[in-house]
Parts: sequence; structure tokens; C-alpha cells
Amino acid sequence: VSAPLAQPRALREDDVVAAIHEIVASATSRRIVLGIGDDAAIWQPSRSHRSVITTDMLVEGVHFTRELMPFFDMGWRAMAANVSDVAAMGARPVLATIAVGVPETVSPDELFELYRGLAAMAARAKISVVGGDLSRAPVLTLAIAAVGEVRPSNVKVRSGGRPGDVVAVTGPLGAARAGLLVARDALTVDDDVARTALDAFRRPQPRVAEGRFLAASRNVRAMMDCSDGLSTDLDRLCTASGCGAVVECVPVADGARAIAEQIGEDPQSFALAGGEDFELIVAIRAQAYPHLSLRFAAHFGRPLLRVGRLRPQAGVSWREDALARSGWDHFAR
Amino acid sequence: VSAPLAQPRALREDDVVAAIHEIVASATSRRIVLGIGDDAAIWQPSRSHRSVITTDMLVEGVHFTRELMPFFDMGWRAMAANVSDVAAMGARPVLATIAVGVPETVSPDELFELYRGLAAMAARAKISVVGGDLSRAPVLTLAIAAVGEVRPSNVKVRSGGRPGDVVAVTGPLGAARAGLLVARDALTVDDDVARTALDAFRRPQPRVAEGRFLAASRNVRAMMDCSDGLSTDLDRLCTASGCGAVVECVPVADGARAIAEQIGEDPQSFALAGGEDFELIVAIRAQAYPHLSLRFAAHFGRPLLRVGRLRPQAGVSWREDALARSGWDHFAR
Repeated sequence: VSAPLAQPRALREDDVVAAIHEIVASATSRRIVLGIGDDAAIWQPSRSHRSVITTDMLVEGVHFTRELMPFFDMGWRAMAANVSDVAAMGARPVLATIAVGVPETVSPDELFELYRGLAAMAARAKISVVGGDLSRAPVLTLAIAAVGEVRPSNVKVRSGGRPGDVVAVTGPLGAARAGLLVARDALTVDDDVARTALDAFRRPQPRVAEGRFLAASRNVRAMMDCSDGLSTDLDRLCTASGCGAVVECVPVADGARAIAEQIGEDPQSFALAGGEDFELIVAIRAQAYPHLSLRFAAHFGRPLLRVGRLRPQAGVSWREDALARSGWDHFAR
Repeated sequence: VSAPLAQPRALREDDVVAAIHEIVASATSRRIVLGIGDDAAIWQPSRSHRSVITTDMLVEGVHFTRELMPFFDMGWRAMAANVSDVAAMGARPVLATIAVGVPETVSPDELFELYRGLAAMAARAKISVVGGDLSRAPVLTLAIAAVGEVRPSNVKVRSGGRPGDVVAVTGPLGAARAGLLVARDALTVDDDVARTALDAFRRPQPRVAEGRFLAASRNVRAMMDCSDGLSTDLDRLCTASGCGAVVECVPVADGARAIAEQIGEDPQSFALAGGEDFELIVAIRAQAYPHLSLRFAAHFGRPLLRVGRLRPQAGVSWREDALARSGWDHFAR
């Protein structure tokens, strides 16, 4: 396992995860329906039930800084990321545990504000915070584990996509990345644009209802959330499904378009690379797509957005060009 | 909530946890049987099943240092702590997720060695590692969440103790603390003593079988693990049960006795203050104690060890003296 990984700087996160997967795979019981590699793992607490579990770690200086974000929003975002992973399995959020590492420079009131943000997102997603752990740490560190439940017939994973499937997302992309730029670089944009972008960055809305709606359809063959950017996450969906994809059109959030133009980037490229939007990516049987997207629009009052098609050849291309994964990779930099 | 906590340095971990509990308690559904405050939370995935979940965060420089412990053992201990919390509910370990924050100074091979330790403990406890997260972090940080399952009738919590109950532990205490001193201060003790103590510190054995055995008895009225030291944890059991306790005798591990004598500490005090032994503390109906302890000894080949009695008056005393909580508190120092 270690031989091809001799140069730490050349490691990609997915390579490290694959090596770790091999190490821990030895001890998996038959109660585990799906282990490492999807948005969440699945197990079978009883014959007629499936539970899912996911975990995320957020580290100050890596995922967020205190300058960019109030404590309340740190908590909100951390919880949102885990709720989103539960939603991406088609599951209903049930409970979460929260471990927090607290540096001496964070006051109790700031810590409580963080928990208020966690609790506010949890209340919105109807997920109960049932336990946790507190520790001293050199920087603020959050690790959340979230559990959800789903009917066995509704479970969605990344690997179900087939060539020909339509790839769609539950909303336009790039808003969170735009919000990060607004917060960090204080870009001069229209107040409304700035506010919308900041909101998308600081208070993202995981697509729980959308995930459950899509999970109930047999024509949705694969689903995951878009937390690391469409280019990176669609590549993961394709790899899991044993196929590739052509991206035809990237739906760009309004705020993202304005910010991209200001910094001189192509809006679609900007949106492709933007992580933490928490929209869901789905692969849908092509014949079923028109009807499903109509039902989705009727139910949620906004459209399901087509981004492309799955294809037999591996890799993700943008129209004709091969697309580099431009999203977040913890080990590549 | 924040008023009595104005002075951060005066905060005890339990005070902070209580304040946080209030913040997050708002959003708890009826599916949650038990939330924050015990070794693990309990929920009901279906009518005839109970699941438990616990989480722990371990931070380099706070809970461990690389000098004191090989990477394999860091992984082993981190997993053991979570397995122990599951065992303390009377549950069978089922699965765990692992989030790891990795500093640049940890090589992939060291990281994999950490995961080998996690996997080895997991295999021993028959717990499946089903997912996780990797992040950059300034110091090595581990956050594990573990899930277990237990028959509804066998669930044990901290709050069931009643005055008159016998308090017992599943093994002698202080060995992990002795091992820490051996590792840190290179004390000159007999090789066998040093090895046993180091082993207890680096490769603790959570009491899964013992927990399930004790959980099956209706006469065991409260159970928890002794991860922060008997003086601290028995106080928690008493507070949850609305009573107090008298400690009559602290069973001291062999290695702990030798080390305590060498550093001039009373062996029983030494053992009282020593955390991370992962023995279970139980409150047992007094009439049932003799028979249960015989059955325990017959089953495990070693005795259940009586340490004292629960009493109506609050607080934990050692024989006649009030006992200060001498275990670990993240916020007290």
C-alpha cells in the first residue's frame, strides 16, 4: 500500500482514502450494507430498516477562519455539511454527535454561540444533537457524526449511474465560493449580490426534502452532494458508477456570476470549481428525466437543473475538453 | 446560561457541558431515548431495537504525544475509548466512523500505522470501520463516533443507582496512569511491572464482554466506564442517580502499586485518580451482589471488585473524608 505513496506532497486525498480503506476493511460484518467511499455508510439495525452515518471534521485555518465567519455560522455550516451527506443518501436526518476542540482563545460565550449555530441548523433539519465531546485543542476543531434513516428501497448511492443517464443538480452552483470571496477579499459588488453570496457561504441549506423526494423515485439511479465542487464530485460519482460524463452546461448562481465576472473568470468554470454549495447531484434514467423534473419543479417551485449526461468512456469532459478536477483536495496542496 | 460562567478559567468541563446541553436540547425528537450526559446516547431505530452512539476527540499535546506512544497505539487507544463507552451502555459494538486531522509532519506511512492500530482494536471489538474524514490540522487530531446495539431490556445508564447499592468495578485501577508515568518519566521499575503498566496505557482493553454480561442482569442498576478516574466518574454516576457514595477500598493494579510507592504516593489515591483504565463501574442491588459476583468470577476467571456503597447523602467520600474529584477535567486547568 505504501510504495506508490512515498512522496507525501504528491498524494491525493482519494489515494489516501483508498489506502486507509484497505487497512480498515478487514473487520466488516454482514450488518454493514455499505462502508467507506460514499457520502455516508449504511447499516441494517433491523431487517426492515436502514440507517446511514457520516462524519466530517472542520479545522480552523483549514476550513474556516474566525475573521471570515461569526461563531454562529461556523456551527451552522459544520452541521449543514453533515446533514447534506445524510440527505445525499436519500435519508431523513435523525441525530448527531458533536466533538469540539477548543483553544484557550475561544471564550465560553463564543463557544456557546458556536453551539447555537449548530442547534439552529439542527432544528431546521430536525436532527437531534444527542452527545458530544469537548477537548482543549490548538485551533478550533469540530467533528460531527450524523445518523439518518431511510427505507431500504429508497437508499441512493454513488455507484448506480449508467451511461446515458441525465446528470442534474438541485440548484445553481458557485454561490458559496462567491460568498467566500466576498468575505475574504471584500469585493465591491451590489449589496444584494454580496448578501446573497455571503448567505450561501455562511448559512448553506442542505437539500433534505429534495433528497428524500428524489430518493423515492426508482429512476434516480445515483445521488451525492456537491460539497467539493461539481468537477471533483461528478468525477467521484462516475468512478463509483464505472462510467464517465460530459458536462454540457453549468448552472451558475446569480451571485457567482457577478463575482466571477468581476475577477475575470468564466462564470461556468467558476461555478464548476466551487465547493460547499451542498446541492445534490443526481443521475436519472434519461426517459424518466422530463417527467421527474416537472414533478420536482411543481413540488419545490424551482427547477431541477440538467448539467449533462453519463457516458461509457471514463473521465469527465466539459463539452469536448477533458475537465481537470478543480475542487478541494486536502492532500494535493 | 452564560452569567455564572463569566470566568473561563473557573469553568469545569461538566459546567460547560450542562450549558451546551441546554442550547442543543431544543431539537430532540421522541425517537431519542437518551440524549447528552451518559457514556452514549440511545435511540430507537425500530420498536424492538435500541442503538447507542458515542463520540470522542483526541488531540495531540492534550491527550497524547508522539514521544509517549507509537502511532499504532494512538489508534488503538482512540478506538478503545469509544468501544468502552458503547460497552458501558451494555451494548454490542457495531460500527465506527473516524475523522482524522493530519499535520504536515505526519507521513502517509505513519498515518497508515495509526489506522492499523484503529483497525486492530476494531477487529478485536468486532466493530466495523465504515467511514471517516481526513483533513489537514496543526496537530494530530482524532474524532471517532461509535455505534452499538442493545436489547431494550438490557440498556444500562448512569442514573439507575439507588442508596444501598454495592459499587463495584470490573478490574483493578491505576494501571494506565502508571504506564503513562513509565513512558513519560522512564521510572526505574522491574521490567515486568514496567511492561504491564505500559501495556495498560498503550493497549487498553475495553470491557465489552463484561458490559454485556452485566447488562443482562436486572440487578445491575447503573453502569458507566471509568475513563476519567474513579473519583470523577463515580461522582458523575452519583449525581445522575441523585445520591452519593462511600468508597471503602480502591482495588489497585499491580503495576500501579509499584509505581505509586516509587513516587511516594498512597497506592489507593494513585489508583483513584488514574483515568483511562476503561474498567466498568457498576451499581448493583446489595442482595444480589454476592451471587452476581460469583457468576462474574466463574464466567471471566477474575473477580468483580467491590469498591463501596451508594448512600442517600450527595457527594463521594473515601471512608469518612470527602473526596475531591482528582481525575481529568479539560476546563479546570
